[in-house]
Amino acid sequence: MSVDPCPLEELHFLLFDVLGLEGLLQAPRYAGHDADGLKAMLEAAHTLAAEAFGPVAAAQDADEPALIDGQVRLHPSVGPALRAYIDAGFLAAPFDEEDGGLQIPYLLAQAIAAVFSAQNTPLAAYPGLSAAAAHLLRAHGSPEQRRVWMRALIDGEAFGTMALSEPHAGSSLADLRTTAYPLGDGRYGLRGSKMWITAADHDLAPNIVHLVLARLPDAPPGTRGVSLFLVPKRLPDADGAFTVQNDVKVVGINHKLGFRAAVNTVFALGDDPDGPGAVGWMVGPPNQGLRCMFTMMNEARIGIGLCAASLAWAGFRHSLAYARSRPQGRRLGVGDGPQVPITAHADVRRLLLLQKALSEGGLLLALKAAQMVDLQRIAADAGDAAAGARAGSLLDVLTPLAKAWGSHFGLIANDAAIQVLGGAGYTRDYPVERLWRDNRLNPIHEGTNGIQALDLLGRKVLGQWAAAALLDEIARSRAAADAEGPALAALSAALGPAVDRLLAATGALAERAAGGDAEGAMALATPYLLLMGHTAVAWLWLEQARAATRGLARGPSAHLMGKLEAAQWFYAWELPQTALWADLITRGDRLLLDADPDHL
Amino acid sequence: MSVDPCPLEELHFLLFDVLGLEGLLQAPRYAGHDADGLKAMLEAAHTLAAEAFGPVAAAQDADEPALIDGQVRLHPSVGPALRAYIDAGFLAAPFDEEDGGLQIPYLLAQAIAAVFSAQNTPLAAYPGLSAAAAHLLRAHGSPEQRRVWMRALIDGEAFGTMALSEPHAGSSLADLRTTAYPLGDGRYGLRGSKMWITAADHDLAPNIVHLVLARLPDAPPGTRGVSLFLVPKRLPDADGAFTVQNDVKVVGINHKLGFRAAVNTVFALGDDPDGPGAVGWMVGPPNQGLRCMFTMMNEARIGIGLCAASLAWAGFRHSLAYARSRPQGRRLGVGDGPQVPITAHADVRRLLLLQKALSEGGLLLALKAAQMVDLQRIAADAGDAAAGARAGSLLDVLTPLAKAWGSHFGLIANDAAIQVLGGAGYTRDYPVERLWRDNRLNPIHEGTNGIQALDLLGRKVLGQWAAAALLDEIARSRAAADAEGPALAALSAALGPAVDRLLAATGALAERAAGGDAEGAMALATPYLLLMGHTAVAWLWLEQARAATRGLARGPSAHLMGKLEAAQWFYAWELPQTALWADLITRGDRLLLDADPDHL
Repeated sequence: MSVDPCPLEELHFLLFDVLGLEGLLQAPRYAGHDADGLKAMLEAAHTLAAEAFGPVAAAQDADEPALIDGQVRLHPSVGPALRAYIDAGFLAAPFDEEDGGLQIPYLLAQAIAAVFSAQNTPLAAYPGLSAAAAHLLRAHGSPEQRRVWMRALIDGEAFGTMALSEPHAGSSLADLRTTAYPLGDGRYGLRGSKMWITAADHDLAPNIVHLVLARLPDAPPGTRGVSLFLVPKRLPDADGAFTVQNDVKVVGINHKLGFRAAVNTVFALGDDPDGPGAVGWMVGPPNQGLRCMFTMMNEARIGIGLCAASLAWAGFRHSLAYARSRPQGRRLGVGDGPQVPITAHADVRRLLLLQKALSEGGLLLALKAAQMVDLQRIAADAGDAAAGARAGSLLDVLTPLAKAWGSHFGLIANDAAIQVLGGAGYTRDYPVERLWRDNRLNPIHEGTNGIQALDLLGRKVLGQWAAAALLDEIARSRAAADAEGPALAALSAALGPAVDRLLAATGALAERAAGGDAEGAMALATPYLLLMGHTAVAWLWLEQARAATRGLARGPSAHLMGKLEAAQWFYAWELPQTALWADLITRGDRLLLDADPDHL
Repeated sequence: MSVDPCPLEELHFLLFDVLGLEGLLQAPRYAGHDADGLKAMLEAAHTLAAEAFGPVAAAQDADEPALIDGQVRLHPSVGPALRAYIDAGFLAAPFDEEDGGLQIPYLLAQAIAAVFSAQNTPLAAYPGLSAAAAHLLRAHGSPEQRRVWMRALIDGEAFGTMALSEPHAGSSLADLRTTAYPLGDGRYGLRGSKMWITAADHDLAPNIVHLVLARLPDAPPGTRGVSLFLVPKRLPDADGAFTVQNDVKVVGINHKLGFRAAVNTVFALGDDPDGPGAVGWMVGPPNQGLRCMFTMMNEARIGIGLCAASLAWAGFRHSLAYARSRPQGRRLGVGDGPQVPITAHADVRRLLLLQKALSEGGLLLALKAAQMVDLQRIAADAGDAAAGARAGSLLDVLTPLAKAWGSHFGLIANDAAIQVLGGAGYTRDYPVERLWRDNRLNPIHEGTNGIQALDLLGRKVLGQWAAAALLDEIARSRAAADAEGPALAALSAALGPAVDRLLAATGALAERAAGGDAEGAMALATPYLLLMGHTAVAWLWLEQARAATRGLARGPSAHLMGKLEAAQWFYAWELPQTALWADLITRGDRLLLDADPDHL
């Protein structure tokens, strides 16, 4: 059964009808593109992903990477697939023309990433890391670093990694111990051990660019003493060719339950006690490493949200195709006649609508965040600080939401896909179990969802009052919907109580934090994230319903009818959960602080 | 790190302090036992499970069963572990003395099963199927079948299977096609193909007893034409020795995402066109096979609930041990000093309390169902029809709840265990990812959770008004709690609205069904199951809080304090969800019926 896990019709709807991608093309930065050209690029991605990424996903999962004689060996199908991706120009496309790219909107680049992710998520991680590393160097690298390393990353001559965690310091970056000693020639020698590093070794390209957090010898303690270094796998020789092996060595592979093609490693920097350490260059100013790295981390977090939603989307499409073709049982009260497709059964429909609502909602959440990146860039080009701040505020809250909401509920959708298939769902004969396993990493890596909740509530909402930007968007959307007919007005009305709850919960937390009980406020960060996430996704379903209604005015469409049904489903079956989360927050539940872990 | 995934302290609390296992020992059937003896048996199980089941679980998962030359080959550690289990008497113990057992309470037998399940669930499936097959033969077999086959199962000379599903008929047993032709000598020849059959081939014992659903040639269509047959792997030769290979053949193995040691097969009956078919004997009367099989299915469903809760429990214990020993970060606002164990972080506590509340709640739910089996038996011995009916009614609702609620929320608990470990949680270095994968089968096999919801609402609640027994138990529990101090009265008061919602929802569904819209009522079977499940588990947490309060009056106990905290957590963080499910039901949401699957 051939299944399209990422139909273009859906992406066209989200990009053009809901998000108004064409509007971005008014900006000088993107004026070289038109809608037809972007659609053609998306279609080319769709074709390549189906041909080069999808067919090898199961084999790459079954035969995971190995560490042989200190070298990582990937499945033989990894290299050709990624080479096809790079050769087709998809790695370079999002970069500016002056950097060798096509300068396409970031929003389109993320839609392209969704297509590859839906076919083979772990494979898409390699170019994703390269692109994020190149963006980091674009923002914080020296002209020389941009010329040499950023270009190598964009051209596919090198792949990127981000090396933050250490065995004793995963979430707590304040406790990093890797040290960088100045070598006196502008270079640094690094010594330490890094953990959970994806793509830290392979032979996909001549070089690998590690972006490594480490401490200078005189650095202050904590996160204020962390600097960023560029450490290549191979250093230039006297002729400038990258032939000299650096002192970076993979010492172990993490054997994971999913996401297997993306090799995950423990690696040692400066293992040779007689050598200079792993040689690298500082990126950005000293002790500002975490701030620089956040460029990459924020991009990676949107990427994780998109990846989680793409996995959920793929699961939805596979289970829908199965459900339509699987006869089993009869409608209630019908004793004989042929068996009917299981889509006739109410509970199967529930599982399908749940997947549609969560996966397409999560996709739009991540794409909306990507659109804010475009709006920030356009505002910067135009010198419009106010527009930039507005987009930035919305991006600030959408980033942790896309990552944490998208992965939490994306995984629930993948679980429902298995359930639709019944016993077939838990066998390796169908991809839904692999998608579920792949998605299980997303609530953890790039900052656990608990960390995302602290970031959202502490840094973004209480620290910068960035919730206002979201509430403002929602209010405008509701006001428009109120004037667009009774069905949309009804959704808008149903969204009202959730918005009120979010406001009340935000106020209660701000008051508690201002009253000196920051710990009591922050203990409720996860319900707050869920509350804001469900409210935001409900808003985005209202936006989808509005776009569908506009489309249906032009003519009938099964796809658009499905949009209205999924919006109604989310409002009826999911949105009321906001009451539970808001109630925990407004009455200031203290169980998490008061419960004694020694009692458990 | 050595972790006890099933502490005896917890089981003692549930069995003796909450459920009052000692009370069962008043009955003549169990008068040969005393509490100390039962505790010794539980302790022996605990030791054997830790020594023989736990240490081989990871290897059995990594190296799954294979089909070689038509024979299933299990991991070499499977046989010795099961032999140790049988030799220690745990397979036979639950059976009556006249059948070669120790006649222990079924409740204790299930607690013993939980201990083995927490160490290695798929391994525990083999004796679980044997015991269920033996119970079926006890209830429905002829004296000869009981003498030969039931005894072989109890003695471990044969293992059992249940063979219901076929490739085109999983949930829809009305569509079974396997046919049984009378051979004229009291035997039958069966032909057909069975799917999803656990333990259908292996060499763990001299024989395998398949309990197979099939149709007689003149059978009426649908479920009223299904009969039950006993089909052994090996038939007796002229000397009565089981040396003659029957025409049953495993033709394929299902490669599963988890639960791997329990081999799952496709098997063919009567593959040889020139032979008589797979030779077997009818069990019970013709065309009554489904009714007979329900004896086994109901037992298996309680078993699945218990297994799901045991997996959740094991995940909780492993993640708790990890959290206590993993230093990471500091309390909010504390910038320096050593890192603290992650149990200090509110969100980790949330994940631990969630696991405790769901897993120990699910365990008690399944054990409560098991206790009803004992009460039924005791009532039957005493000829007390009213007491038997009371226990039976409660068992009727607790069985689908234990299976579906236990597996749905058990899996959520296993997901939280992974999250507590962070990156370590998704590697194979820790068991939590395997437990999560193992548990993913439980919402599907032995009747999907959607089927359980239809069984609960259609057959048990609307068909037999069995909800009354549960509501009656809850009312008695609340009345007692109201008199036992303000903390318990507060929990009882918080349970009130959930009970009212359950009553209102039940009434609304009964009214709709009586008004001719059975389809509209049954479409909401899943939210109804979740509503009743959460209400029942809240009641069981009230019972635990009552027992803990009694215990704390005798002296301090960290374990009992933890019980009160988990009860409060369930009431604050989980119970309010009942409002969402009840609201969907009382306002008669019709989206699942009205949504068009062609639109998705």
